[in-house]
Amino acid sequence: MTRSELIRQIKTKRSFLCVGLDTDINKVPAHLLGHDDPVFEFNRQIIEATADLCVAFKPNIAFYESRGMAGWKSLQKTWEILPRECFRIADAKRGDIGNTSAMYAAAFFDQQASGLGFDAVTIAPYMGHDSVQPFLAFEGKWAIILALTSNTGGLDFQTVEDRNGTPLFEQVIRKANTWGNAGNLMYVVGATRGEAFAAIRKHAPDHFLLVPGVGAQGGSLSDVCRYGMNAECGLLVNATRSIIYASAGTDFAERARQEALALQQEMEKELLNKGII
Amino acid sequence: MTRSELIRQIKTKRSFLCVGLDTDINKVPAHLLGHDDPVFEFNRQIIEATADLCVAFKPNIAFYESRGMAGWKSLQKTWEILPRECFRIADAKRGDIGNTSAMYAAAFFDQQASGLGFDAVTIAPYMGHDSVQPFLAFEGKWAIILALTSNTGGLDFQTVEDRNGTPLFEQVIRKANTWGNAGNLMYVVGATRGEAFAAIRKHAPDHFLLVPGVGAQGGSLSDVCRYGMNAECGLLVNATRSIIYASAGTDFAERARQEALALQQEMEKELLNKGII
Repeated sequence: MTRSELIRQIKTKRSFLCVGLDTDINKVPAHLLGHDDPVFEFNRQIIEATADLCVAFKPNIAFYESRGMAGWKSLQKTWEILPRECFRIADAKRGDIGNTSAMYAAAFFDQQASGLGFDAVTIAPYMGHDSVQPFLAFEGKWAIILALTSNTGGLDFQTVEDRNGTPLFEQVIRKANTWGNAGNLMYVVGATRGEAFAAIRKHAPDHFLLVPGVGAQGGSLSDVCRYGMNAECGLLVNATRSIIYASAGTDFAERARQEALALQQEMEKELLNKGII
Repeated sequence: MTRSELIRQIKTKRSFLCVGLDTDINKVPAHLLGHDDPVFEFNRQIIEATADLCVAFKPNIAFYESRGMAGWKSLQKTWEILPRECFRIADAKRGDIGNTSAMYAAAFFDQQASGLGFDAVTIAPYMGHDSVQPFLAFEGKWAIILALTSNTGGLDFQTVEDRNGTPLFEQVIRKANTWGNAGNLMYVVGATRGEAFAAIRKHAPDHFLLVPGVGAQGGSLSDVCRYGMNAECGLLVNATRSIIYASAGTDFAERARQEALALQQEMEKELLNKGII
């Protein structure tokens, strides 16, 4: 999906919500456990209940890998039903030396090779340029690079300043800006890092930011918008647990929809305030 | 596998060789392509030809994921035939927020959950302590943290110095030392970084180092030993392409054995010189 198509979807749906599909088989409601593939059935109902309220879906690959071959099968089937008008993110946090990163890029982008054709993959930048470039070599696909993450460990190294006072996450953004552009690169910035958005926008005014941490992790949507929104929105805000686990009962999909709707309505206000729609 | 058991294996086999199983289906010799699962058959013959010469095997997960479900099946079958006296490393370079890293740990350590029960997983440290700790929570398993990698991009961020002149890879080692110990943590240091081993040994005198980059990537085994070996060896030196792709013909396994044997013989000399055997 191109940048302009993504912006068009945001304006049409009046939403910049990304729904995380971090489906833990131990949290799937009991009434689904009789299905052949309860994780897929759970995802199917969540997708159906929220697809008109969000512009992106983001399965976190760990939750599928943890179940080995059975999990990979759930992922494959889930990918196949993700609506094509939604931006499809493989939250995989991959990265390796060049020839190996090319294999990871094939895993998530090259449908003929792997069966999966996501629009974007999240990438850990520790190994530098040749770990990222193979993802950028895929026309029309995106690399989403970890910059400042939402977890407590995000402060262990990402905010350490170099001799010039530049924190690591800013070094990452500055360097990565030279590897790609606002049409094939995004950055992950945790919603819990409200105060850092201004600094990040200085270095990446046009890039989309993928923002996890709203909801269960405690980040504030209005802070994220105040400091992070640009003239074309420039934000994909992810919520996972607050949506997909809103209820553990037979009403899980309906409750997921209510949670997604509440976020979409907040987002619509932000888009209106900013004059984007 | 415990640290003392690993050391015993090194002394018994007079080797600290790790054979990388980065099996690219496009490089599998033509005569194997008629097999049900050519990647597994290739691995089976490589393992059989080299198991007495090495102490560890290290499939790089990217090469399996790139083939989707079929690749995951090859990985599963390969894991099942890895000799139990060998240290089995999933080279996956994973890492995510705490609850998600726990899923990755299950993917590679928890045989009941995923079908796989590796001894160790490689981890990218960008996301800090809570991305690593779930791996250390598994008794008898190891986290192998990227410190200074062998690729050119390894110099983009890993050697950037903080205000005190400490490069990032040393910050990683110092901090990670507080999360685990020499019995459950190793560090990845590229063989191409000969000069850095002395600095690393200052901070991690007892830890094992996993050293890729000998062979195709141009690192020198004797330099690695000169600066990196400790009194109990403390090294697992990986070679992949120089061994598994030594020949593209029907003699590929025999040639792989010759290459592994040459490295084992060099390693035996180093172990003798150091008085370890």
